[in-house]
Amino acid sequence: MPSTTIDTVGNWINGRTATSDSPDATNVYRPATGEVTKRVPAGSRTDAEAAVAAAHRAFESWSATPPHIRARVMFAFRDRLLADIDDLAAIICDEHGKVLDDARGELQRGIEVVEFACGIPDLMKGEFTENVGTNVDGMSMRKPLGVVVGVVPFNFPAMVPMWMFPIALVCGNTFVLKPSEKVPTLALKMASMLADSGLPDGVFNVVQGGQTVVNALITDPRVEAVSFVGSTPIAEHIYRTATESGKRVQALGGAKNHLVVMPDADIDSAVNALMGSAFGSAGERCMAISVVVPIGDEVAQAVRDRLVERIAALRVGAGTEPDVEMGPLITREHRDRVISYLSAGVEDGAELVVDGRDRCDGPGFFLGASLFDHVTPEMRIYREEIFGPVLAMVRAESFEEALELVNDHEFGNGTALFTADGGTARTFISRVRAGMVGINVPIPVPMAFHSFGGWKRSLFGDHHIHGREGVRFYTRYKTATIRWPQGRSSAAEFVMPTAK
Amino acid sequence: MPSTTIDTVGNWINGRTATSDSPDATNVYRPATGEVTKRVPAGSRTDAEAAVAAAHRAFESWSATPPHIRARVMFAFRDRLLADIDDLAAIICDEHGKVLDDARGELQRGIEVVEFACGIPDLMKGEFTENVGTNVDGMSMRKPLGVVVGVVPFNFPAMVPMWMFPIALVCGNTFVLKPSEKVPTLALKMASMLADSGLPDGVFNVVQGGQTVVNALITDPRVEAVSFVGSTPIAEHIYRTATESGKRVQALGGAKNHLVVMPDADIDSAVNALMGSAFGSAGERCMAISVVVPIGDEVAQAVRDRLVERIAALRVGAGTEPDVEMGPLITREHRDRVISYLSAGVEDGAELVVDGRDRCDGPGFFLGASLFDHVTPEMRIYREEIFGPVLAMVRAESFEEALELVNDHEFGNGTALFTADGGTARTFISRVRAGMVGINVPIPVPMAFHSFGGWKRSLFGDHHIHGREGVRFYTRYKTATIRWPQGRSSAAEFVMPTAK
Amino acid sequence: MPSTTIDTVGNWINGRTATSDSPDATNVYRPATGEVTKRVPAGSRTDAEAAVAAAHRAFESWSATPPHIRARVMFAFRDRLLADIDDLAAIICDEHGKVLDDARGELQRGIEVVEFACGIPDLMKGEFTENVGTNVDGMSMRKPLGVVVGVVPFNFPAMVPMWMFPIALVCGNTFVLKPSEKVPTLALKMASMLADSGLPDGVFNVVQGGQTVVNALITDPRVEAVSFVGSTPIAEHIYRTATESGKRVQALGGAKNHLVVMPDADIDSAVNALMGSAFGSAGERCMAISVVVPIGDEVAQAVRDRLVERIAALRVGAGTEPDVEMGPLITREHRDRVISYLSAGVEDGAELVVDGRDRCDGPGFFLGASLFDHVTPEMRIYREEIFGPVLAMVRAESFEEALELVNDHEFGNGTALFTADGGTARTFISRVRAGMVGINVPIPVPMAFHSFGGWKRSLFGDHHIHGREGVRFYTRYKTATIRWPQGRSSAAEFVMPTAK
Amino acid sequence: MPSTTIDTVGNWINGRTATSDSPDATNVYRPATGEVTKRVPAGSRTDAEAAVAAAHRAFESWSATPPHIRARVMFAFRDRLLADIDDLAAIICDEHGKVLDDARGELQRGIEVVEFACGIPDLMKGEFTENVGTNVDGMSMRKPLGVVVGVVPFNFPAMVPMWMFPIALVCGNTFVLKPSEKVPTLALKMASMLADSGLPDGVFNVVQGGQTVVNALITDPRVEAVSFVGSTPIAEHIYRTATESGKRVQALGGAKNHLVVMPDADIDSAVNALMGSAFGSAGERCMAISVVVPIGDEVAQAVRDRLVERIAALRVGAGTEPDVEMGPLITREHRDRVISYLSAGVEDGAELVVDGRDRCDGPGFFLGASLFDHVTPEMRIYREEIFGPVLAMVRAESFEEALELVNDHEFGNGTALFTADGGTARTFISRVRAGMVGINVPIPVPMAFHSFGGWKRSLFGDHHIHGREGVRFYTRYKTATIRWPQGRSSAAEFVMPTAK
Repeated sequence: MPSTTIDTVGNWINGRTATSDSPDATNVYRPATGEVTKRVPAGSRTDAEAAVAAAHRAFESWSATPPHIRARVMFAFRDRLLADIDDLAAIICDEHGKVLDDARGELQRGIEVVEFACGIPDLMKGEFTENVGTNVDGMSMRKPLGVVVGVVPFNFPAMVPMWMFPIALVCGNTFVLKPSEKVPTLALKMASMLADSGLPDGVFNVVQGGQTVVNALITDPRVEAVSFVGSTPIAEHIYRTATESGKRVQALGGAKNHLVVMPDADIDSAVNALMGSAFGSAGERCMAISVVVPIGDEVAQAVRDRLVERIAALRVGAGTEPDVEMGPLITREHRDRVISYLSAGVEDGAELVVDGRDRCDGPGFFLGASLFDHVTPEMRIYREEIFGPVLAMVRAESFEEALELVNDHEFGNGTALFTADGGTARTFISRVRAGMVGINVPIPVPMAFHSFGGWKRSLFGDHHIHGREGVRFYTRYKTATIRWPQGRSSAAEFVMPTAK
Repeated sequence: MPSTTIDTVGNWINGRTATSDSPDATNVYRPATGEVTKRVPAGSRTDAEAAVAAAHRAFESWSATPPHIRARVMFAFRDRLLADIDDLAAIICDEHGKVLDDARGELQRGIEVVEFACGIPDLMKGEFTENVGTNVDGMSMRKPLGVVVGVVPFNFPAMVPMWMFPIALVCGNTFVLKPSEKVPTLALKMASMLADSGLPDGVFNVVQGGQTVVNALITDPRVEAVSFVGSTPIAEHIYRTATESGKRVQALGGAKNHLVVMPDADIDSAVNALMGSAFGSAGERCMAISVVVPIGDEVAQAVRDRLVERIAALRVGAGTEPDVEMGPLITREHRDRVISYLSAGVEDGAELVVDGRDRCDGPGFFLGASLFDHVTPEMRIYREEIFGPVLAMVRAESFEEALELVNDHEFGNGTALFTADGGTARTFISRVRAGMVGINVPIPVPMAFHSFGGWKRSLFGDHHIHGREGVRFYTRYKTATIRWPQGRSSAAEFVMPTAK
Repeated sequence: MPSTTIDTVGNWINGRTATSDSPDATNVYRPATGEVTKRVPAGSRTDAEAAVAAAHRAFESWSATPPHIRARVMFAFRDRLLADIDDLAAIICDEHGKVLDDARGELQRGIEVVEFACGIPDLMKGEFTENVGTNVDGMSMRKPLGVVVGVVPFNFPAMVPMWMFPIALVCGNTFVLKPSEKVPTLALKMASMLADSGLPDGVFNVVQGGQTVVNALITDPRVEAVSFVGSTPIAEHIYRTATESGKRVQALGGAKNHLVVMPDADIDSAVNALMGSAFGSAGERCMAISVVVPIGDEVAQAVRDRLVERIAALRVGAGTEPDVEMGPLITREHRDRVISYLSAGVEDGAELVVDGRDRCDGPGFFLGASLFDHVTPEMRIYREEIFGPVLAMVRAESFEEALELVNDHEFGNGTALFTADGGTARTFISRVRAGMVGINVPIPVPMAFHSFGGWKRSLFGDHHIHGREGVRFYTRYKTATIRWPQGRSSAAEFVMPTAK
Repeated sequence: MPSTTIDTVGNWINGRTATSDSPDATNVYRPATGEVTKRVPAGSRTDAEAAVAAAHRAFESWSATPPHIRARVMFAFRDRLLADIDDLAAIICDEHGKVLDDARGELQRGIEVVEFACGIPDLMKGEFTENVGTNVDGMSMRKPLGVVVGVVPFNFPAMVPMWMFPIALVCGNTFVLKPSEKVPTLALKMASMLADSGLPDGVFNVVQGGQTVVNALITDPRVEAVSFVGSTPIAEHIYRTATESGKRVQALGGAKNHLVVMPDADIDSAVNALMGSAFGSAGERCMAISVVVPIGDEVAQAVRDRLVERIAALRVGAGTEPDVEMGPLITREHRDRVISYLSAGVEDGAELVVDGRDRCDGPGFFLGASLFDHVTPEMRIYREEIFGPVLAMVRAESFEEALELVNDHEFGNGTALFTADGGTARTFISRVRAGMVGINVPIPVPMAFHSFGGWKRSLFGDHHIHGREGVRFYTRYKTATIRWPQGRSSAAEFVMPTAK
């Protein structure tokens, strides 16, 4: 394919498309075929500054707009998302590779946050105390921060940005989004849909690119807060760098989500759940299950047997084809990296029960589902996030041992327990050191009106994302104490004032 | 006074007094007389680690104690504080120098946070959604963080720690307090009162000392969060260092609080308010008014004339003497530093209308109240926090100019406006970039059930202190999504789950 | 006009139009011309029972639908309302007579409640306390009530029903609406729009008619709650009757809203506000200002002079004509009733400064704006709600006298104060015995995310309408206390269990 | 015992003891011995009016007292309750008959509400929306109602009043308490303790007596709200009468609480729970379990066998004696009434497995525990509340049948399910028509920061009692909409104002 036919995607600044001044660009692939479909600019500091400047200019007027008027942009945006959901899903499928139904599911979860954001006028309300002291009233309110930045990963081109900007915008902030350079298109699509929904120019901006852009954004003195979703090392870097320059940060990192199967669990349900949650979206989800912990060898054997059978029947192919269950990985490099874990697991002594490399033929970035058994906590395939269709079985003797496994892992994003027993479930929910817990639910992503986020090295910052946590993250607390003149002044108060 | 009679104060670790293993110590003075009354150990890393270890051990049991049982310790602690308020005030007066009524006022404000903390069992409640999906329920809860640390300044030996630990403890955390080495006693007093109130050993600990101790505490991997109140450079250091090691931080720094006097204000009230808020506690308050901004020269002259008259009548002396309105500064060094600002102001061209150096005689660390007029934004006495009894008048032509002054200052802690006009007050509250706003209230410290904190470089972190902000700071969000087995399993879900 | 051409409107039951079995019917007029445009059935007990039965059948399934799925019907309904807003406004204008812009305004305020209702999934969340006792958890949740009924007045054919059903429906209830027999069409329109928006059959129903229908609805044992808006005598009857059969009731009644003008007020603004709020919608609003209270004769004279001038210029005519400011009254009978108050006022000694009867010519139900001066509290025109374009001026000497007037009146719906003074406004807000207070706002209808309602005999019941008050009105509280088996049983607890 | 030695208890009005002007009086007994210990006046309308008048006078000042100052009375009251808990328990034991530990437990649960009330300053906070429209702000607040009345039953002389007045008082209301004439003393005790805790005169008042007093209180035009706990017929009468005169009412009535035992339940735990919850306090609790529903005959037989064994060992006697588990009934008349149910049950065909009449000897009002088996829904002993130590076993075949039983009963106060299965528990909590549900908890009284109340004919009114429901019940909603003058007036707004 001659390079002259390949377009380079642009930025979206101040309500219109803008061209990056960066001469460098990287390829965007169609993972199902390996073709280069577009190029994305590497981005520059001036690109970032232009976006921040636009957002900064737009802040005063947008933040002074009544909250319910801001919310109406989201009502309109929701309508457009629903109207275009098939087109948007096709873009996701094309650039990311996931199957169409999964892409629609992602959009649906994003729309739920948009719906939540429509209710923010109520949730932003401040507080008022009459007579906090005699004839003195106290108030508090939550004010938007200013310019806020979102830096997002490739695996959810629509949903993860929508965890951020709908809430940030309705709270009165202006926004700069830095999409993944692997999936640059959907952000631009959403930008123009927001504009069509009535969002004023400059309130939402998109800058394409890589590290240069990110570093420019997270150190710009006009930026007040940064939301990030990606891998733990980058999350930690973002958190450290942006907090160092005094910004508010929520940085969501990696995961190693365990699913524990109790002997009283419905094994068919559990295996069913494992298939979808380990191999759906080719395992490229921070909420994917990558470790299964059956309690006792009998459960382990039953789970293993059925998994082997199910994996054999798994339909791998292009996400656009009907009935396909698992698409390709995002890039050839990433597939190679996942494959290297298969070797590492074998070297470390795990049993590779099913080897997904059998399905690596063809130009697309495909890799079949893999299953390891007899994995132990020291192995790299247990300690590190693989982000591919690889499931590791760690056998445990008891519930307590399984709980300890989850709690001792560096990551604490999500986890699941399959059981029918109320007491076991309660103990797990209470004691497990993870941010999101599922009981007989393999991917316990909270609804939009609850909030998403992990514990330990899966999240850096005080606030989880979206829901009421998001409203608080994107607003700053202010109080007022008010006394009106009433008659004459008396002696000065040299002592600490206390309400009487 | 022979040094042999001077006691070195201890730490409080795991429910009892402990001796520091640090050989170094610094003097504690009685500011009203200049005498050395005690010595405080420099502190060591092992001191800090012992306290953290005790707190870490105590966490599991304390966090599993029902919230209302934890709250009952605060009910009992409140009773003891009220019973001993005069003794505690005397300690504050002795070590800090503030007048007795002011010390009692400080204690009273601290007690109000204790009272707020008694209501936390209600405020900690999580959320529950039945049927977040068909037959799926969603929950969220807030869990205590673990070991949390408080590092506090000299100016409120009782109140500032009580902004932190009552809330942290009732939320289920365990606590290590690092008091100011200038006022080490009250922390120990509160520690033993907490123990007498039924707090289990190890839940609250005190480590005396300086920088070594602080750095050990804020980098200890077992510490989950740090609350700090002090100067902006240290606040920023604490915030950067502790966030770098992944901790949650709220670091409250310096201030330069402006009081704006509108032409329609009651000038007597305003001057009265200025006297108390600029010179009360010798200006050593982060909520002290250090800048007065009269609108128009007529107002300026009226305010100036009355201030001169009032300052002349100001009663300066030991805080224990009856009718004294202003005590000494905390140390000789600090007084020298404040005095250096008087020279700097004159050099920079401000008019030193009243020079407080006239009252510097005697062995105590006294300094009279000073008033500058014709101060401008470039001057050091305007830009920097002096933390002494020095009031700077900056004349403005209009409300807009005054508002801009406040908004352009590096700090944004508190600010006040004196006016009778509803619209002017509303505009000020809405547009001023400061965390705490007073309307005809010079020191707008919010009540305990609202929250305290500034904006800009007056606060680093996402959360203001005490009130509901405190409850959220000291707890971490967790969600659970629950579906119970109901009949048979069906096809695996490879697509993003969305509730239907 | 031959009766054969006049259609009789129907009911809406179980998702489709239904014909009343009642033989009697009453006329529906076009107030601008006096023509009969439709007939509305008197309604029967069996009509009411059919609607309740449909709602009762629909409840189980609807209440088990996840809240956010229920909310999506409101998202879709909002879109349709916006799309059809001009057609809907034309219907309101035709049946009620108000001007088109006012009808659109009414729809807009209704849409705001629909928007609020979209956020209810968050607001319905219950509460959860882990370890309410050792290993015992406590939860609370809010469950929908069942079948709820709305009985609404003629003056807001769209807005008042939308204060009720959007909230009731998203909370999981099913609904029966009884519109005013003077404006029957819009309810049917909304019913079919709800069906088109995806609302299942039976969830929303409409029964036309009068007293027979109302009494059947409010005593039906399957009905759990009644929302009513109308006159005070009927509100009181509804409240007594429905509470007697154990139902939850919110019954909003009449009003006599005072607007107090302080000497420091902007008189032009105040007069402007009075024109719109006294004569807009021909005074047929429960939030209309019907009493103006100037403080001091100087203010009184200024207000009076400008009102006379403005009333002379007031454009009265059919609501469909461009630039018309005030339309006709609802019926000839109602106009006669309003006119009778003009006579009564004169008889009681008030000065009829402007007599609106001059504009009563023609077949439409027009009446010009009237102004009384020197009205006193004993007069009927002061004590009773006229519900027409009649403004009474009561002169007061002082703020305190004005406040007492408002507080002593039987009604306490809304009230307004015009002033620039913060302290006066604060005192008014705090001490006035009325549910809705405006400061320089003549019609202080709260936004949808606050709640609407009066005090004293303007509202019977515990809950104001819409907003969070609405969410609570339409849901019932349930708690659960949960302990899972843990080891062995011990001695029976004969004493009152207390958490330890 | 000569009548001259028997004192007649007084009222408490306006901060001091007052003598009833009623000539009639009834006996107060010591149930354990049958002795008359005091007499209580029948009470008069003037008694009631005097109390209401005192409360009415006290309202203005009390309601204007800052909330946290009002709360401090509760802090002090709590201390006194804890200090005197043994003396207070002895009074309860003497007049009511329950065992001392149970009386202390009752006091403890009451103290928990007092503790909750200490946190009300935070929970009363209103709401504030800046820019509800352009330059228009919206606020809401909750204001105290005025004089509120509590009418309470004999079975919890301390706890039930404390469900009411601590919350009512801190919310700013003044209170009139009408105790049960069978247990008049504790109310007076609490009144004087409140006075000693700093409550101003008139804020809390007690009127002794019966129906005359109640009817005077609930129809007095100065009374704004009534809280009632008692039997369903009286609750319904109170609700109807007080709502008829426009008051806010919460009237809690009778109960017939079912405990369902699933086959997977721990039978020992269930039986243990049944013993305490059916026979504790001699069954005179609205949360007593009076019906046990085992699922399947095997479970039924096991439960029955162990109950028979345990009842045989039950220690019945005076509550002051050590180790006694069950005391006497409240009066001879009440015991006769309970005994009549034993006959009725046998007549209706139930099997009286254990007959408690064996323990009726002696002068005290003792009655042993009774157990019926094979009870069916038509029997009087199933339909009616017996309020004595009588447990009815209704055998069910399935969970669904048991659930239907609970749901079909007229009452819906509390209910419990014993199971280990998470899904069964979830279904029960979700679908059962009762206000308070226990899972493996027989008496699911919610903690004070949740709220107490039943469904169906167990509660009349919109609000459950105590907790946040209590705060809302005792406060009335008010909104303010505020716009300050800004430049010039424009055209009058004749159309419905909508925020832009």
